[in-house]
Amino acid sequence: MSDEASLGVAPTAAAEGAATPGQQQALLAEMVEDAAVWCAVNGLVVGDRANQRSGTVPGVGLVHAPFSLLPARFPASFWKQACELAPIFNELVDRVSLDGEFLQAALSRTKQVDEFTARLLEIHEKMMTINKKEDIRLGLHRSDYMLDSETNSLLQIELNTISSSFPGLGSLVSELHRTLLNQYGKVLGLDPKRIPQNWAATQFAEALGKAWAEYNNDSAVVLMVVQPEERNIDGRIVAVVYFRAGYAPTDYPSEAEWRARFLMEQSSAVKCPSISYHLVGTKKIQQELAKPNVLERFLDNKEDIAKLRKSFAGLWSLDNEEIVKSAIEKPDLFVLKPQREGGGNNIYGHDLRDTLIKLQKEQGESLAAYILMQRIFPKASLTALVRDGDWFEDLTISELGIYGAYLRNKDKVILNNQSGYLMRTKVSSSNEGGVAAGFAVLDSMLLTDE
Amino acid sequence: MSDEASLGVAPTAAAEGAATPGQQQALLAEMVEDAAVWCAVNGLVVGDRANQRSGTVPGVGLVHAPFSLLPARFPASFWKQACELAPIFNELVDRVSLDGEFLQAALSRTKQVDEFTARLLEIHEKMMTINKKEDIRLGLHRSDYMLDSETNSLLQIELNTISSSFPGLGSLVSELHRTLLNQYGKVLGLDPKRIPQNWAATQFAEALGKAWAEYNNDSAVVLMVVQPEERNIDGRIVAVVYFRAGYAPTDYPSEAEWRARFLMEQSSAVKCPSISYHLVGTKKIQQELAKPNVLERFLDNKEDIAKLRKSFAGLWSLDNEEIVKSAIEKPDLFVLKPQREGGGNNIYGHDLRDTLIKLQKEQGESLAAYILMQRIFPKASLTALVRDGDWFEDLTISELGIYGAYLRNKDKVILNNQSGYLMRTKVSSSNEGGVAAGFAVLDSMLLTDE
Repeated sequence: MSDEASLGVAPTAAAEGAATPGQQQALLAEMVEDAAVWCAVNGLVVGDRANQRSGTVPGVGLVHAPFSLLPARFPASFWKQACELAPIFNELVDRVSLDGEFLQAALSRTKQVDEFTARLLEIHEKMMTINKKEDIRLGLHRSDYMLDSETNSLLQIELNTISSSFPGLGSLVSELHRTLLNQYGKVLGLDPKRIPQNWAATQFAEALGKAWAEYNNDSAVVLMVVQPEERNIDGRIVAVVYFRAGYAPTDYPSEAEWRARFLMEQSSAVKCPSISYHLVGTKKIQQELAKPNVLERFLDNKEDIAKLRKSFAGLWSLDNEEIVKSAIEKPDLFVLKPQREGGGNNIYGHDLRDTLIKLQKEQGESLAAYILMQRIFPKASLTALVRDGDWFEDLTISELGIYGAYLRNKDKVILNNQSGYLMRTKVSSSNEGGVAAGFAVLDSMLLTDE
Repeated sequence: MSDEASLGVAPTAAAEGAATPGQQQALLAEMVEDAAVWCAVNGLVVGDRANQRSGTVPGVGLVHAPFSLLPARFPASFWKQACELAPIFNELVDRVSLDGEFLQAALSRTKQVDEFTARLLEIHEKMMTINKKEDIRLGLHRSDYMLDSETNSLLQIELNTISSSFPGLGSLVSELHRTLLNQYGKVLGLDPKRIPQNWAATQFAEALGKAWAEYNNDSAVVLMVVQPEERNIDGRIVAVVYFRAGYAPTDYPSEAEWRARFLMEQSSAVKCPSISYHLVGTKKIQQELAKPNVLERFLDNKEDIAKLRKSFAGLWSLDNEEIVKSAIEKPDLFVLKPQREGGGNNIYGHDLRDTLIKLQKEQGESLAAYILMQRIFPKASLTALVRDGDWFEDLTISELGIYGAYLRNKDKVILNNQSGYLMRTKVSSSNEGGVAAGFAVLDSMLLTDE
């Protein structure tokens, strides 16, 4: 992120001596209108929560997705670094997934305090018992990063291995920003060519198609799971199961959903993800992998290992008394993360201190339900955010997600790529990510030379 | 339109012995869901009237446009006939537009009863006085037809020469139907290749681009008029004025709008349409052109004239006492059309009889405010209509609009093409067209051999 005014309007326009503040506002308002129309005609839309039928009836109650008016500035060097990490993380996930003993051991304590992880591990254990092998393995991941201004480094927030979201809308925002800069880039002094191409949706779809082809049965179908359920699919053979749900406890309201998940795992279909890939994406495994000498168990290439390690923020279990002590003393330097997925649950500041003190007193297994992470301090910059047709400027921070696609059939690696990106930008006073969760918007990026 | 069940589902599925009524309904419901999702991600959306902000704030309160689930069946022979008419009508409009005396004379009585037409004629007269010539002339027309089952012929309803609507959404519906038939065509027994390609939006945009190029000034802009107004365009030169408004009295709430229209007409910009082109599209001129020996004044090619005449429905002024008498006796064979544009004003049946009797008694100039037209009886067919995410089946009739683009620079005809189509389908019990006006939906067509 840059120290310059992130809108890029003021300096350029001022340099040209052309724009008064009033003219700037008029220009931004015109851009907002153009952008909102573009969203409507190009499918950059979401369900409007104010409309009761949206979310249940397709095609009704639509509103443009919240977006930033202009792409977030992002140094090209960090972009390159993040892209290079994608295939290495893809490979790491695959290697770790093959080590069932490691997964079971690493998550053994988590299992005792987190019922959800326990159920996943139970399925995983049954697959180990029957010695289930996945010859064709498909991963559609998203690795999320922030730029830490304290260390001037790109640090990983988390790695998503199931239901990685927003490849579709994310690609569209890049296209929206490119369209806006083709029109307004000159007056703003912003070059549309500095927005990286983003084919996330297409690349994920191609990866699914290739997995289907590897399954090698022309009459077999791809099943998208939006709710794990035992469903009559009319005797059709399933080549690929793509999970767009199943990552949160609320996706399993009854035993029926768990039976469905188990059934799918037992099948010969390519699972995206398999239960092993799913478990590799837990925060506990992220923290285990950050321990000394653990990456070396899974990867051979020293350079790759160094690249991964460079992107790891400090990650600790609450067994580490020294770190817990530091966190209680300086809670603002840490984030307390529960195992649960979906965002909105991280603990900061006073709450972090109080929770740690409480957990220490209890001294029970509940310590295992959390991990501690080094807090990252991204630079804030002024951004115009558009929501519900209205816009406002605020200080924001951004999080970069890099999509990765991995497909392997036994010894043959068919795909191992960086596959587009997602930028999410949120008002910096809020502490949680997730566009759905608060004042956060979809974004893209403008590469800078710094 | 065909006698067969228009959904095309029952016969095929029954032939295969595969589908029960329940399965058919389930299939249609699945298609509706797929179609609504397609609409949302491909921009086949409109403002939801239930949402107060839609229509004023772009990008909010969106809902899929109302559409028919499957394309309307349409005989290939009539489709060919309609396509062939497009360049001839394009040329006719151009020729008639050059004959200012004819326009003034033909509309002289209309002027006395229709204030709106009078204002247009006033501008037109001023242009004649200053001998204003339009070297570059751009027409983006839509000629609307219905199939008359009484005469088994394709008959013109009207010719739009200003603000021809729905090229964008119309093209998308063709694409939606092609997508659905690619997925479901096999089970329905419908071939997606029988849906004609429809590039209306692209072709209109290209025509605007070519008009801009003919103007030959790289720094000049294209101005889209959504409200005639005197607007500061920062001293920019306007190459093309495209009217997306200005065809209805409500578009001119004050004298300021009329001054703006006059100003634009005086300018050297290419007008789409010019005041002359606009006047050629009035119903009175349509009726005048249908009189014997009038087409011959404007066109030389006898074959072209015969083709046009074949597409003319009976059209009469209310001066024709014999026809007025017939219409009072058999009102169901006629439609009474006021000069006013925009649909929703046509008079049928009892109302037609009462109005004619009243007008006869008055014996004043008010007769000139209307024309009588032969009523067309299209065949009704059963269609699944989708609106607001819900669907229902009903008997419908369809109206085919053929877009035409014409561009000329002095003696050089640069474009004279059929440029896509629009099918509109409405519940047959309603008497008025216009998707916005009632139970009418956007549609495309499936060509049949009959």
